[in-house]
Amino acid sequence: MAYLNENYLKLQAGYLFPEIARRVREYCEKNPDGAKRLIRCGIGDVTEPLPRAAIDAMKRAADELGQRETFRGYGPEQGYEFLRSAIAQHDFRDRKIDVADDEIFVSDGSKCDCGHILDILGDQNKIAITDPVYPVYVDTNVMAGHTGPAKKDGGYEGLVYLPCTAQNNFVPEPPSEHVDLVYLCFPNNPTGAVARREQLRRWVEYARQHDAILLFDAAYEAYISEANIPHSIFEIDGARECAIEFRSFSKTGGFTGVRCGFTVMPKTLLARTDSGKKIPLHPLWNRRWSTKSNSVSYPVQRAAEALYSPEGQKQIRALIGHYMENARILRETCARIGWEVFGGVNAPYVWVKTPRGLTSWEMFDDMLRQINVVVTPGSGFGAQGEGYVRISAFNSREKVEEVGRRLPSLAAA
Amino acid sequence: MAYLNENYLKLQAGYLFPEIARRVREYCEKNPDGAKRLIRCGIGDVTEPLPRAAIDAMKRAADELGQRETFRGYGPEQGYEFLRSAIAQHDFRDRKIDVADDEIFVSDGSKCDCGHILDILGDQNKIAITDPVYPVYVDTNVMAGHTGPAKKDGGYEGLVYLPCTAQNNFVPEPPSEHVDLVYLCFPNNPTGAVARREQLRRWVEYARQHDAILLFDAAYEAYISEANIPHSIFEIDGARECAIEFRSFSKTGGFTGVRCGFTVMPKTLLARTDSGKKIPLHPLWNRRWSTKSNSVSYPVQRAAEALYSPEGQKQIRALIGHYMENARILRETCARIGWEVFGGVNAPYVWVKTPRGLTSWEMFDDMLRQINVVVTPGSGFGAQGEGYVRISAFNSREKVEEVGRRLPSLAAA
Repeated sequence: MAYLNENYLKLQAGYLFPEIARRVREYCEKNPDGAKRLIRCGIGDVTEPLPRAAIDAMKRAADELGQRETFRGYGPEQGYEFLRSAIAQHDFRDRKIDVADDEIFVSDGSKCDCGHILDILGDQNKIAITDPVYPVYVDTNVMAGHTGPAKKDGGYEGLVYLPCTAQNNFVPEPPSEHVDLVYLCFPNNPTGAVARREQLRRWVEYARQHDAILLFDAAYEAYISEANIPHSIFEIDGARECAIEFRSFSKTGGFTGVRCGFTVMPKTLLARTDSGKKIPLHPLWNRRWSTKSNSVSYPVQRAAEALYSPEGQKQIRALIGHYMENARILRETCARIGWEVFGGVNAPYVWVKTPRGLTSWEMFDDMLRQINVVVTPGSGFGAQGEGYVRISAFNSREKVEEVGRRLPSLAAA
Repeated sequence: MAYLNENYLKLQAGYLFPEIARRVREYCEKNPDGAKRLIRCGIGDVTEPLPRAAIDAMKRAADELGQRETFRGYGPEQGYEFLRSAIAQHDFRDRKIDVADDEIFVSDGSKCDCGHILDILGDQNKIAITDPVYPVYVDTNVMAGHTGPAKKDGGYEGLVYLPCTAQNNFVPEPPSEHVDLVYLCFPNNPTGAVARREQLRRWVEYARQHDAILLFDAAYEAYISEANIPHSIFEIDGARECAIEFRSFSKTGGFTGVRCGFTVMPKTLLARTDSGKKIPLHPLWNRRWSTKSNSVSYPVQRAAEALYSPEGQKQIRALIGHYMENARILRETCARIGWEVFGGVNAPYVWVKTPRGLTSWEMFDDMLRQINVVVTPGSGFGAQGEGYVRISAFNSREKVEEVGRRLPSLAAA
């Protein structure tokens, strides 16, 4: 009989967000009034309309496909040159970061890339992740057989966990032990923390000493508001020899439903064979895309390109300004009612210490039932997330202001 | 140092189509006149404009994303209900095939699905593929470490090859030995062959006897013109217990650049653990999508849905009629000049025996140089494809007629 991939059976309960969805559905079915008042600040999903420049570009591209002269079938598997070069130019070379067009691989999202990257890496790698962490990094490694079974605290045997706590401002230092792969995400999901240049330098130094690879998720880089915070790992000298970066249009252009992101795979990045031979990963990644994908919808790639136009850039800045004003309101309200609050300055996530020693899920349930606000329980992101909830700033101003009005009643309860 | 996935190093030279592209580019650079006359009948890529219904739906969806009231962010990871139910109803239940909405998993293409399906299957499976074969089935298994090294004939150690020859009308019988997974593609790419009901019955019987799984690629089902040829493996009794089906809008709606396809994963399909426990694959596949994807662009899913509208269906029929008339012209021209020709009746591919004992690449080069027509060398699809070329009917009428005019000069040369 055909065998299944048993590693899937190690996976804990539901993926975090389906579990939240289940609890919310159950609550709403039993409480129609609460359901009507429900405000979702849980899943990090954008709410504001797509930038006009992207819509117009997508519609123009759709029309092109309607004419024989301008019809396009299969595009290059790695993405159209027009988009790869726009990305490399605007996001990197204009910021004096050395990235070539063909080091950009266009995909249908950063979540997918975080999983796909494991395709080209060996099963022998020792893997470090932060705790709390975006669950996709962990679950894709469980699925690929890179971990042992689940532990009682929700973690997995075989992974190296790097605690992110209020003590280290949620930015871990490199571990004392050797690891081969490290997932880093800054600005961080879920804590909203950012890594300063000096901290990233220490990570690059560690990676170069250990010949490790940093898998750097920069999906939220556009939310950085403070000067001198690196937007890309490639701002750090030496990172081209030890890092891969993941980026997304989801949270910049509001593309969560449009689907487009990219990886930066430097041609100077090597990995080893079992026998110790060092080989560049770029051709493997290129081959992966050639064989396993036909790239991203043409109209979507045109929409992404349009985000780099002057109008597109202006519309993105307005969107991000909107969400970051939301973050400020949420952050300041939480602080005012006496909660300990982190993030929300360089990231659209506000990371709140639960009051009165509540567990994350207790606070989740309290907020759902008492003020009909959905947040994300911090413990869903890892053991160190216990005692925190994540409040997302992705919402309309009206709803965020309403959350601001409801929060004090919860604090007083 | 971080390890790479060494299985990639087993992969033979280029993926077939990049290699063709390389030779064509080289020829065109040296022969500007030939380049001007070039007609591409190689890669199976559509050429005709996208159906109007799909364009209109995509543009409407783009506009929806531009309004707060109708904006959508993340959709369900398995695809929107509106599309899953349209597919299950029109492609299956309307044809009296038992498939539930939630057995449909929407993806960005069949090529991707053929690779992704291995995510949930064990590494212990014994795998059979036809020869010739769509290279993606083989290469994704090589990448996943399911094969030994490459052999001299281009095949890989560890795979069971099922020869498809003129003797068996390019439809192999089940093997005498045990295998766990079998890739079947009908209408076939590259040969254009179709499997008759009785032949598929024998495959289902084999699969049930051996507890094997049939990975059934039906990307070209819409091209079936003869009555009584099954369009889906699920037309065969018992297939719900032993088959997964891959479908695509690429060749029906001309979606090669728009990107949308789907898998049918029956909830009744089981696979085993190492210890012999039988478990349904559907929850694993569902989990795979939840964790590793955010489904397909919303406007693309709306465009796919529109293909099922009465206008969409009419436009699809016109498109397929167009390509199949091309296939008839190509097939009849080849036959008239004395070539042995297969396919092209229920599939958009014409499979031609090379004259005068030419190898596939020799005929490819002859056609490129002498009549400036690009075809696909049969040997690129496997050892048994040697001595054949595939001519694709995906083209404008004008170009196909021109190919028809040029072919006789090659035959006479």
